[in-house]
Amino acid sequence: MKKSTKIDTIRHSLSHLMSMAVQELYPKVGLGVGPFIENGFYQDYDLPEVITPEILPSLEKRMKELIKENTKFEQHNMDFDEAYKFYKRDPYKTGFIDDLKAAGEKKVSFYKSGWFDNLCAGPHVSSAKEINPDAFKLISIAGAYWRGDEKNKMLTRIYGVAFETEKELEHYLWQQEEAKKRDHRIIGKNLDLFTFSDLVGKGLPLFTEKGSIIRRELERFIVDEEIKRGYKHVYTPELAKVELYKTSGHYPYYKDTMYPVMKIDEEELILRPMTCPHHFQLYASKPHSYKELPLRIAELAKQFRYEKSGELTGLMRVRSFCLADAHIICQKEQATDEINSVLDLIEYAASALGLKKEENYRYRLSLGDRTDTKKYYKDDQAWNFAENILRSVLKDRKSPFFEEENEAAFYGPKIDIQMKTFSGKEDTAFTVQYDFVMPKRFNLTYIDEAGKKQEPIVIHRSSIGAIERVMAFLIEHYAGAFPVWLSPVQVKILNITDRNLKYSEKILEELKKEGIRTELGSDNETIGKKIRESELEKIPYILIAGDKEEKNDSVAVRERGKGDLGAMELKKFIEKIKKEIESKK
Amino acid sequence: MKKSTKIDTIRHSLSHLMSMAVQELYPKVGLGVGPFIENGFYQDYDLPEVITPEILPSLEKRMKELIKENTKFEQHNMDFDEAYKFYKRDPYKTGFIDDLKAAGEKKVSFYKSGWFDNLCAGPHVSSAKEINPDAFKLISIAGAYWRGDEKNKMLTRIYGVAFETEKELEHYLWQQEEAKKRDHRIIGKNLDLFTFSDLVGKGLPLFTEKGSIIRRELERFIVDEEIKRGYKHVYTPELAKVELYKTSGHYPYYKDTMYPVMKIDEEELILRPMTCPHHFQLYASKPHSYKELPLRIAELAKQFRYEKSGELTGLMRVRSFCLADAHIICQKEQATDEINSVLDLIEYAASALGLKKEENYRYRLSLGDRTDTKKYYKDDQAWNFAENILRSVLKDRKSPFFEEENEAAFYGPKIDIQMKTFSGKEDTAFTVQYDFVMPKRFNLTYIDEAGKKQEPIVIHRSSIGAIERVMAFLIEHYAGAFPVWLSPVQVKILNITDRNLKYSEKILEELKKEGIRTELGSDNETIGKKIRESELEKIPYILIAGDKEEKNDSVAVRERGKGDLGAMELKKFIEKIKKEIESKK
Repeated sequence: MKKSTKIDTIRHSLSHLMSMAVQELYPKVGLGVGPFIENGFYQDYDLPEVITPEILPSLEKRMKELIKENTKFEQHNMDFDEAYKFYKRDPYKTGFIDDLKAAGEKKVSFYKSGWFDNLCAGPHVSSAKEINPDAFKLISIAGAYWRGDEKNKMLTRIYGVAFETEKELEHYLWQQEEAKKRDHRIIGKNLDLFTFSDLVGKGLPLFTEKGSIIRRELERFIVDEEIKRGYKHVYTPELAKVELYKTSGHYPYYKDTMYPVMKIDEEELILRPMTCPHHFQLYASKPHSYKELPLRIAELAKQFRYEKSGELTGLMRVRSFCLADAHIICQKEQATDEINSVLDLIEYAASALGLKKEENYRYRLSLGDRTDTKKYYKDDQAWNFAENILRSVLKDRKSPFFEEENEAAFYGPKIDIQMKTFSGKEDTAFTVQYDFVMPKRFNLTYIDEAGKKQEPIVIHRSSIGAIERVMAFLIEHYAGAFPVWLSPVQVKILNITDRNLKYSEKILEELKKEGIRTELGSDNETIGKKIRESELEKIPYILIAGDKEEKNDSVAVRERGKGDLGAMELKKFIEKIKKEIESKK
Repeated sequence: MKKSTKIDTIRHSLSHLMSMAVQELYPKVGLGVGPFIENGFYQDYDLPEVITPEILPSLEKRMKELIKENTKFEQHNMDFDEAYKFYKRDPYKTGFIDDLKAAGEKKVSFYKSGWFDNLCAGPHVSSAKEINPDAFKLISIAGAYWRGDEKNKMLTRIYGVAFETEKELEHYLWQQEEAKKRDHRIIGKNLDLFTFSDLVGKGLPLFTEKGSIIRRELERFIVDEEIKRGYKHVYTPELAKVELYKTSGHYPYYKDTMYPVMKIDEEELILRPMTCPHHFQLYASKPHSYKELPLRIAELAKQFRYEKSGELTGLMRVRSFCLADAHIICQKEQATDEINSVLDLIEYAASALGLKKEENYRYRLSLGDRTDTKKYYKDDQAWNFAENILRSVLKDRKSPFFEEENEAAFYGPKIDIQMKTFSGKEDTAFTVQYDFVMPKRFNLTYIDEAGKKQEPIVIHRSSIGAIERVMAFLIEHYAGAFPVWLSPVQVKILNITDRNLKYSEKILEELKKEGIRTELGSDNETIGKKIRESELEKIPYILIAGDKEEKNDSVAVRERGKGDLGAMELKKFIEKIKKEIESKK
């Protein structure tokens, strides 16, 4: 169990103070679990009536009073008989005592704060004066089954958030509000980027024209960049025989998240959950010399994984995704250079997408476990060697990173790129893996300088992860206001009067000829309304064409977020925006 | 049954003359079927021994003698008793007589040529002098089961080809030789463009780096061209619920060629055999006004169809392909313009790929059948209207085309783009379809100028067909010598001596910077050998760098098919090749 930090104990103690406030209102309340959690705490109650969020301010007020009274928190023990007697009217607490007894505990720990004595292992603050009364807030009420089992009674769970300072609380609450507004599912709908269909199926997004523009820009950007860096981009099938995944050894680990098998004639086919064995088949289709290594086989690879329907989340978690995938087959001695090049590419791509290291993402070094031979391929020496290489690369680059035990792939350790969402949640976006197992399984070889057969190693890596997921991140990161190169519509032309329609159409043609994605807003609306609507669509540039502009062969330019930039020669504007597109600003 | 043309009767009579030659060698030979076929004829024989192709010249020689003897072909009838008696030793011919009797025939037709009397419905030439003895050739021997049933005895089939003139025969034989050399499966292997893997599965090609370059060029070319022409390119999932195809009405027609159903939770999913219903779901995701029509939804769409393993042929016929697909949703009145635009695009794209109308492809107008209500949606008026529109468009464009009854889609008539392979075989590469059924099935609507709900029509179309198949065509069309823009390697630099290696590397960097796909052939081989090898790889340009070139900052240029172009300033060469790439020459 993780050790409690200062803020954890504050949160835990707040949950006790909340229970005091609740029990003052409902003396016979039953008490379920009440732990501290990330950013706050909760407590489950069996209440005699339904309560609504209107009750929360009065509970908060009473909690603040209890804090100001400097309520002390004091630990003491009871024996089991005493404890059962104390809670004789509460079946939940009695249940906890049963658990402790079954676990072989000798006594039951309680924390007493004022009149409230509560079965609890702690730890807690020693006095409520350690709690900042302005740095917590009760935020919501939800239902929760006793012991998480839907056959049991549903209890009432009250959630609170708490920090050490009022400023932290305010920042957190602002972040949550902002994150709600930035939810990529909402922005995706408002900006018409993607949709779902009941007839198509769960977790299978359909990209509209606008969403497809972003996707195509991302795909071409990363393919071109990878080719520039020496990757060989290929196309391989979305499915394969089950046998391929049995050969690779993936099948037992992944079969629960794979799609069902399809029988065709004598073949058992399956949608692929990863690309590596396909790339190994390409490699194995002809002999190779050491001169060809490192061989970097890359693909924008469609992959299919079964995710539970409750876990599907917009573009963030889907059942079919397109990974910017690659497998670098190289000599062991080339691994350090190759991993460095991969991290260079990842950092370059992230920065081109506007994402900052340490702020938007960070590295995690995920290690194996030498004692777990069921989960990990057994070869201690190879594991030590590989883990050291990954660690040294990160250290030598002076890249901050943290280590996590028992998070490796079954075939080797990896560096995870941990992406942080706007609301502060962190998730593995994609990985760089060192693999010393697959070359054996697929009999991958090369001929060395002496003419002898050798076994290469494989680095599995992505550069920007799954297109769907990176789009979800970017939508939230930019709140839909994409940089010009990614914007589905880069320029909107608005004519002030019908007189200027022809001139507007001429501008439209000129911009289109330059490959700039442009729309003409020629509806019969006031120019003010047209500007407001275009701003809601988060279009980077609005060009206004009136009599004056027409006379001077110019346009009045409005830039998103900056407002009116004044009149500009059309030629000048084209130069300006093309430069911005080019530089991905 | 199709009426026999002059050349058909010649071919048929040649099969009789061949049987005479065979029966002279094997008097007790049994005679199976012996029809004329495209380009020639064959005859099945039950022979007392195995024969090899060495026998063919002697048979040919004997046939030529029979021709020169002006052997007459004369029809006469026998009654059934006579016929059975005549063939009492031949169980095959007796079988044919059984068939005729069962079919209710009154007599049995025979053709007599010299001593050879043969059960046959004819027709034949009246005299062998109508046959050009220099315009036929026996080409091969194969096994064929009696009545095509593998439980029966295997007979010996001898194939011949025959034409009216010797020139036609020579052209045909040359074409066959050439087609064998151009076989995309062989060139694909020699030039390392794609491969297959037993572990991946049948009909599922893996594109290597070089094949992927061609594929990516084709994909980007057609996507960019379509976007320029007002198509909205989207991405939709490779699979959907079976329900989607039941709603569209495709399921009963296509279920035998669809992949098996995959059950996930409560959903029944299936790999898509076509894209239309996905695009309709996108359209139906929001309301539409007449102002948005025509709405052209396009996609590089992965599709999956079960093809029998015996029909799989390299990239030409696969089990998973990527179609340059689109669905134009428009008002009925817009159909003529839209179909014209589609044919404009098809002709533009074909010409950019170097394919000529009438020579490499032609149009077929595929019509419905008003009496077949099982195969075709019942709405005579709509069928007449749609067929007339397609016919008028083709006529007004003065596009040569031919009509074929009973070849339409179930939801409407279509224009098929019939592609001819180098060996002269014709196949439907892709289609343009008029659809008045799907909008009803998916309840697709738009609001007209008067604010009333209306039903649009749909044009299903491709522009270059499936990427896999167009690649197969192009490989055979160019015999692997692709135009510069499609060539996986556009330039190869060869240094004459080690002294020039640095200079060669400098050229390599400059060309790469310009986005020109360049390789450096720096092996320790003679320059002559290096040139020959590069020419086998069909690389468009070879640049030779020696002392003289290095001194003048120039390169000695060799162009594929043209040989030595002499020395050229590097800058000049870059200009030249970039212009060629740009213009797709």
